[in-house]
Amino acid sequence: MAGSWVDIPADSDFSLANIPFGIVSTPNDPSSHAAVAIGTSILDLKVLFTSSASPFLTTQIIPSLAGHEHVFAQPTLNAFAELGRAVHREVRAGIQALIAADTSHPDVLRDNAPLREAALLPQRAVTLHLPMSIGDYTDFYAGYHHAYAVGVMFRGPANALQPNYTHLPVGYHGRASSIVVSGTPVRRPVGQILLDEKPVTAPSRRLDFELELGCFISRANAQGTSVAVDEADKEFIFGYVLLNDWSARDIQAWEYVPLGPFNSKNFASTISPWVVLADALEPFRAAAIPNSTPLQGYLQEPKDKKSVFDIKLEVDLTTPESDTTTVCRTSSRNLLWSFPQMIAHHTLGGCPLRAGDLLGSGTISGPDASERGSLLELSEGGKKDVLLYGMDARTFLKDGDTVTLRGYCADGNGARVGFGECRGRIYGPSSN
Amino acid sequence: MAGSWVDIPADSDFSLANIPFGIVSTPNDPSSHAAVAIGTSILDLKVLFTSSASPFLTTQIIPSLAGHEHVFAQPTLNAFAELGRAVHREVRAGIQALIAADTSHPDVLRDNAPLREAALLPQRAVTLHLPMSIGDYTDFYAGYHHAYAVGVMFRGPANALQPNYTHLPVGYHGRASSIVVSGTPVRRPVGQILLDEKPVTAPSRRLDFELELGCFISRANAQGTSVAVDEADKEFIFGYVLLNDWSARDIQAWEYVPLGPFNSKNFASTISPWVVLADALEPFRAAAIPNSTPLQGYLQEPKDKKSVFDIKLEVDLTTPESDTTTVCRTSSRNLLWSFPQMIAHHTLGGCPLRAGDLLGSGTISGPDASERGSLLELSEGGKKDVLLYGMDARTFLKDGDTVTLRGYCADGNGARVGFGECRGRIYGPSSN
Ligand SMILES: [Ca+2]
Ligand SMILES: [Ca+2]
Ligand SMILES: [Mg+2]
Ligand SMILES: [Mg+2]
Ligand code: NI
Repeated sequence: MAGSWVDIPADSDFSLANIPFGIVSTPNDPSSHAAVAIGTSILDLKVLFTSSASPFLTTQIIPSLAGHEHVFAQPTLNAFAELGRAVHREVRAGIQALIAADTSHPDVLRDNAPLREAALLPQRAVTLHLPMSIGDYTDFYAGYHHAYAVGVMFRGPANALQPNYTHLPVGYHGRASSIVVSGTPVRRPVGQILLDEKPVTAPSRRLDFELELGCFISRANAQGTSVAVDEADKEFIFGYVLLNDWSARDIQAWEYVPLGPFNSKNFASTISPWVVLADALEPFRAAAIPNSTPLQGYLQEPKDKKSVFDIKLEVDLTTPESDTTTVCRTSSRNLLWSFPQMIAHHTLGGCPLRAGDLLGSGTISGPDASERGSLLELSEGGKKDVLLYGMDARTFLKDGDTVTLRGYCADGNGARVGFGECRGRIYGPSSN
Repeated sequence: MAGSWVDIPADSDFSLANIPFGIVSTPNDPSSHAAVAIGTSILDLKVLFTSSASPFLTTQIIPSLAGHEHVFAQPTLNAFAELGRAVHREVRAGIQALIAADTSHPDVLRDNAPLREAALLPQRAVTLHLPMSIGDYTDFYAGYHHAYAVGVMFRGPANALQPNYTHLPVGYHGRASSIVVSGTPVRRPVGQILLDEKPVTAPSRRLDFELELGCFISRANAQGTSVAVDEADKEFIFGYVLLNDWSARDIQAWEYVPLGPFNSKNFASTISPWVVLADALEPFRAAAIPNSTPLQGYLQEPKDKKSVFDIKLEVDLTTPESDTTTVCRTSSRNLLWSFPQMIAHHTLGGCPLRAGDLLGSGTISGPDASERGSLLELSEGGKKDVLLYGMDARTFLKDGDTVTLRGYCADGNGARVGFGECRGRIYGPSSN
């Protein structure tokens, strides 16, 4: 792909091939509204589509947006998501055309100094907000190596996976209100935990991160109807974010029988601020982990289908002393189930999805020791120190620790498509 | 309490002592807006508070509402709920004063024929909608006799209750998008179920109801902060509804290990349309089931505290042939945990609640055989026929069956405070 007249560093997650969407407030406009990320800049879509250039854009370049320009003035991307994948595609392509080095429309933005100065802002000058209004959040458990490793820890290798695990994408309902955008400090939860087999109320001593991929839904299905797996792939996915599903292992162990995780997971989950459109990830498709279990019809995808993505994922742990160690490097291809399969399963009984719903993949770990997507696995259930730079070590997170997830795809030709950061710092329950 | 000049039948759930709030659309105003139920009528609050009587009302009778009259023109009760319990109390008392037989302000409504005709409508002339925008829905498991009976069924009497059951209010996150208002038909879910130990995809054969009490939250707590149990009781509860948490037992049995119920519960949950304010239930407080386990400090309520309500609850099962059998009669006092305890537990780790969130009590059953709040219990796990009028019988629900929950409190002096109906009819997955 040719370059852009906007300065885009070679290692930027936000290349011309990406164009992820987010919600910003800016020095000139404190109300939350839509933007895309380009290199170290943002392009303010509210400014662009309320400018005198807008009529030209919606007649000549992005006709499918005509009459819907107001979606970019809204405080979430839900209305834009609901316009459907064909519109997302056309808007992304139109923005790429505008900012391409060899743009056919230099007068619209490149050579229009007043608009360029109003609409193109440094990322560091804007505040990023939660991109979607999340009606419901569902967390799946599709990371095979994670499920297996945790199963071995609790039940041994013979019974590591529950009998249902390879038959259906196991998932549970999470807490939508607890989802926060990257950078939001996370308070260590207080909870009931067992100490010497007696419950006490105390700050969690086994606070963990979970490396996940999040998927935003673009459209609703009517209650009582289901979504076919291929329809899910083509029409129901808006885009993707990184997701850190913070987990308090000690609270979880005591509370979760028989109805699943609750306070161990509902205090905060952090997502990266930029939604990478489904189209932007298409070139990076990969095969999921093979599943030898014969699948029910509604879960079947074509045998050679590349149903997941090869996103390089990394987890950095930064100590209060500012020493950073990359504790995990893996890929989002390590999933047994694809998001279309999760959507088909979620709606099988008629559960209504809505635009803005968030699905989590479940913790993603790879087969190797360096690919473990949680401290539970890295520390082998808290038994082993995870060594860090600065002569430090962890089994679980300490107050003042910062966890940063990163993710990107690269095809070697500069078409780097990345997510930016998903970052959160832990503070103690007695501090403010 | 003295009578009303509005006709209120003696057995009405909506006596002068009740004044529950709901969302209606009317022949003259198809937009959803607020009303209260009185006898067989509704009083349209949007009409009332946009009428020429409104300034008098907000200066003389309900001053705390001044400037907030627009909350009754909104399509949900969320904004009204957020005004706080002192305002709910004053509005309810003000409406009671207006419609009392001996009202001191007969000119406002009683003798104001044009306003009376515009604002007082027969209930059968209006359409009832979901009363709140529900951000998150949490279902607890506080019905002690239900948890015990189901535990005996699966694990025997010695291990009926899980070790955590008496230490904390066990709960899980439900599916907010699936909540529907009374009268909405419910499609029997298709799901993965085990037949001869092999999974198949089929309509549920073990479709059940669950008799629950629902509690709506009136205000938010900031993420990272917790709500004390007495603060929860005084300030965080807007009101109550009946809740039927439809459950597919066969889907549940196969899917729920290890992360809890998912598709077995997320296809639909039905609530009654009228929110009975917390204040209206105050006279009907009762002691919860005694818990001999020493409680953590954050769950402790005064020893003699009447922390739950004695609401008479009934479940009717109506066959497709229109024969109705009352299959359960019990009381909402059969809870081990109060809603304030559930709220204190829910927020212990900092989980943010928001106005409009719904908490379910869990299935309410009493100690006797006639008090079982689910078919799972009534049919002893599907082993025993539940006999119905019309020479019929059930283990689980058939297509065309209607389940109706009813609930009311009565003090014998005409101060009947009831919920109206929470009703749903099952249709087959192949019909439309
Ligand atoms: Ca997770
Ligand atoms: Ca339930
Ligand atoms: Mg979480
Ligand atoms: Mg339900
Ligand atoms: Ni307002």
